[in-house]
Amino acid sequence: MSKVLIESPTVITLNDSQEILSDTSIFIRDGEIVSLIPENENPPDADLVLEGKGRVALPGLVNCHTHAAMTLLRGYADDMELLPWLQQKIWPVEGKLREEDVYWGTLLAIVEMIRSGVTCLNDMYFYFEAAEKACREADIRACISGVLLGILPTAEADLEKAMHFLSERRENGSQRIVHMIAPHAPYTCPDEMLKKVIAAAEKTGVGIHTHLSETKKEVEDSLAQHGETPIAHMEKLGMFAGPPVVAAHCVWATDEEIEILAKRGVGVAHCPGSNMKLASGAAPIAKMLAAGVPLGVATDGAASNNNLDVLEEARLAALLAKVTGCDPTAVKAYEALHMATRGGAEALGLGDVIGQITPGRRGDIILLDLKRPHVWPPHDLVSHLVYAARASDVCTVLVEGRPLMIDGVLKTLDEERIMAEAAACAERLAG
Amino acid sequence: MSKVLIESPTVITLNDSQEILSDTSIFIRDGEIVSLIPENENPPDADLVLEGKGRVALPGLVNCHTHAAMTLLRGYADDMELLPWLQQKIWPVEGKLREEDVYWGTLLAIVEMIRSGVTCLNDMYFYFEAAEKACREADIRACISGVLLGILPTAEADLEKAMHFLSERRENGSQRIVHMIAPHAPYTCPDEMLKKVIAAAEKTGVGIHTHLSETKKEVEDSLAQHGETPIAHMEKLGMFAGPPVVAAHCVWATDEEIEILAKRGVGVAHCPGSNMKLASGAAPIAKMLAAGVPLGVATDGAASNNNLDVLEEARLAALLAKVTGCDPTAVKAYEALHMATRGGAEALGLGDVIGQITPGRRGDIILLDLKRPHVWPPHDLVSHLVYAARASDVCTVLVEGRPLMIDGVLKTLDEERIMAEAAACAERLAG
Repeated sequence: MSKVLIESPTVITLNDSQEILSDTSIFIRDGEIVSLIPENENPPDADLVLEGKGRVALPGLVNCHTHAAMTLLRGYADDMELLPWLQQKIWPVEGKLREEDVYWGTLLAIVEMIRSGVTCLNDMYFYFEAAEKACREADIRACISGVLLGILPTAEADLEKAMHFLSERRENGSQRIVHMIAPHAPYTCPDEMLKKVIAAAEKTGVGIHTHLSETKKEVEDSLAQHGETPIAHMEKLGMFAGPPVVAAHCVWATDEEIEILAKRGVGVAHCPGSNMKLASGAAPIAKMLAAGVPLGVATDGAASNNNLDVLEEARLAALLAKVTGCDPTAVKAYEALHMATRGGAEALGLGDVIGQITPGRRGDIILLDLKRPHVWPPHDLVSHLVYAARASDVCTVLVEGRPLMIDGVLKTLDEERIMAEAAACAERLAG
Repeated sequence: MSKVLIESPTVITLNDSQEILSDTSIFIRDGEIVSLIPENENPPDADLVLEGKGRVALPGLVNCHTHAAMTLLRGYADDMELLPWLQQKIWPVEGKLREEDVYWGTLLAIVEMIRSGVTCLNDMYFYFEAAEKACREADIRACISGVLLGILPTAEADLEKAMHFLSERRENGSQRIVHMIAPHAPYTCPDEMLKKVIAAAEKTGVGIHTHLSETKKEVEDSLAQHGETPIAHMEKLGMFAGPPVVAAHCVWATDEEIEILAKRGVGVAHCPGSNMKLASGAAPIAKMLAAGVPLGVATDGAASNNNLDVLEEARLAALLAKVTGCDPTAVKAYEALHMATRGGAEALGLGDVIGQITPGRRGDIILLDLKRPHVWPPHDLVSHLVYAARASDVCTVLVEGRPLMIDGVLKTLDEERIMAEAAACAERLAG
């Protein structure tokens, strides 16, 4: 199916001119957006024509940081302090994880994300080959990385395995799946290991996906150990000098660190839902936006969120920035929508590939039905998307022009089987 | 239709023992919950049998404070400072309001709320007779009040009209519709007017619905004018000594004021979404819960939220309390769910009528489908409802045992016509 036409939606392009084009058809050939066609022009013939009239077309949502397979632990433990939560609940279960758990848990996450309009996820977890397999089968776009924990005895072997995998995959890789290397965090990876990771990233050209400055304690410990805050310390180690880096959280980034992030073009994956639920704090995203940091939103894993709803994260990003900054004008609706789409793409180093509905970008597009009572009357579609819409307003999802969902019906995955298998995995792990 | 049976849902009772009963049928006769029937017992015959197997039954959600007809202004103005927002945008449009606008705007709000599982709203707005008419036609439960603004030239006449209306309605009132008297706020109603309102409430026995301590500026102004914070000043005026009072916001309530609220049993309508969007602050709800203040959640009007999604407010209540209190254990999932249901009922003085699924309470019950990927696997239903579910998971809604929605189909309202009429009103007001 090489030619796809989306007929006459209102297109929120997210292009440089921030254009919103009503009754404009989108033509996609071989996965690439070729043209936007106004109502008074005849569209080209297509193999697949999707009804867009009365709907809103948006670049697919980007989930900039998640641990997809943690859907298996959704609702397993909540409302706890971080350390008991990890030590008593999450880690013991993760110790029992098998490759098949990651496979089914990732598929469950993907089903949820497709239904919520996510077309690209940035994943970091154990058994990354299983996560990659799930993403390939789903036809979703993904950045895949296996988590590297320097504090584990297997750290050296894990790093070597990741590097070997990466060098193999670079040869046969699909453009849709990008690999990254993922040192978990400065507080779980000693400097010596981080230096090896940085060298390996430089050698292979793959990007780095990590957690930075999530909690106040992490910052205090870093100051005590290194005399530097975490982001400043990573800058000194050279992490930001090579291939693209995406850093989750950055809740406690200082003004100086925000300057580093902006200067180096480090992508930040803002996780307001997780940061609120774990009481980590509120990342200074108004400052990051002003400084020009590539900024996306993310759900984190479903054990600390507890859903994978990027539209909700965009809303939380705006609301949290306003209330903690005592400024109702902070992070406006368009900025929040940008973070959920183009900003996320840019944070992942994919700004030339996705994030806009404009000729030359790939056909990762979602359609939403905003003719519903909770997003009515239609004063302002961008406001409605950020402040009133629900994930369930997403009706159709395309990646590379290929439909993953049409009018609420999944096209690449067997939802019923995935839910059954995931429930069985969860029962074995945590039942 | 006097006998209704909901067959075999999992019942989250919200009763004193916090029971969650799987595969338990609910029998409702003449609007009242008569019995909960375990799986191994035969249920009585019924005129209407609703499938509940595999679903979750919950007391209907309570929206403790809204201005329903402001749906007409949803998305009309966002991301502004409070005063320019009111002076340049909201008030000029409200100046053009007609009774029919309030009627259609309220119906639009009710359609959205029924679809989101709200069975009871506490409304305060202009042309309250039109709001009441809408609620009666929808068969939804409501507390109705017309907003009294002491700063308007019509203040005296408005108060007299409200009192006349109340005395008439008390004679012919339906139990489903409760009337309240609604002085807007201390900063818009002089003490002399508030004293009249308090006297009138005492004379008629109707409750008071008002805004208290929403912004820091309100508190500072109150201190400057009265030498007292707003809630303390209302206590001195005697507002809390008579019939039930429900106060929206209470963002800046001091420890002493929380004691007053608890001692007097003043209901608080916590509006986290609105408070975040307008950057008003974070109400100290963990302290209120600890002190025993009757606490519900509320959406406020759709111009400052921008939806009427009480499940989302419950989530925001938990998340905001955690992040601003630096405590992930603050406001646990069950507490948030309690606020959205039983707590809201108690805050409105309706704790003996609704808020629990238990014999003797009225049949205001909703069914949710939690066999969906974003609320899966089923580790913990309460966690899922608060941290992962969506309004769109609500499938069936009953008020007094009468179905307002069955499996997503509205039973009392013409959704298409309401959306068209509301759009026409909005276009005339703000187009």
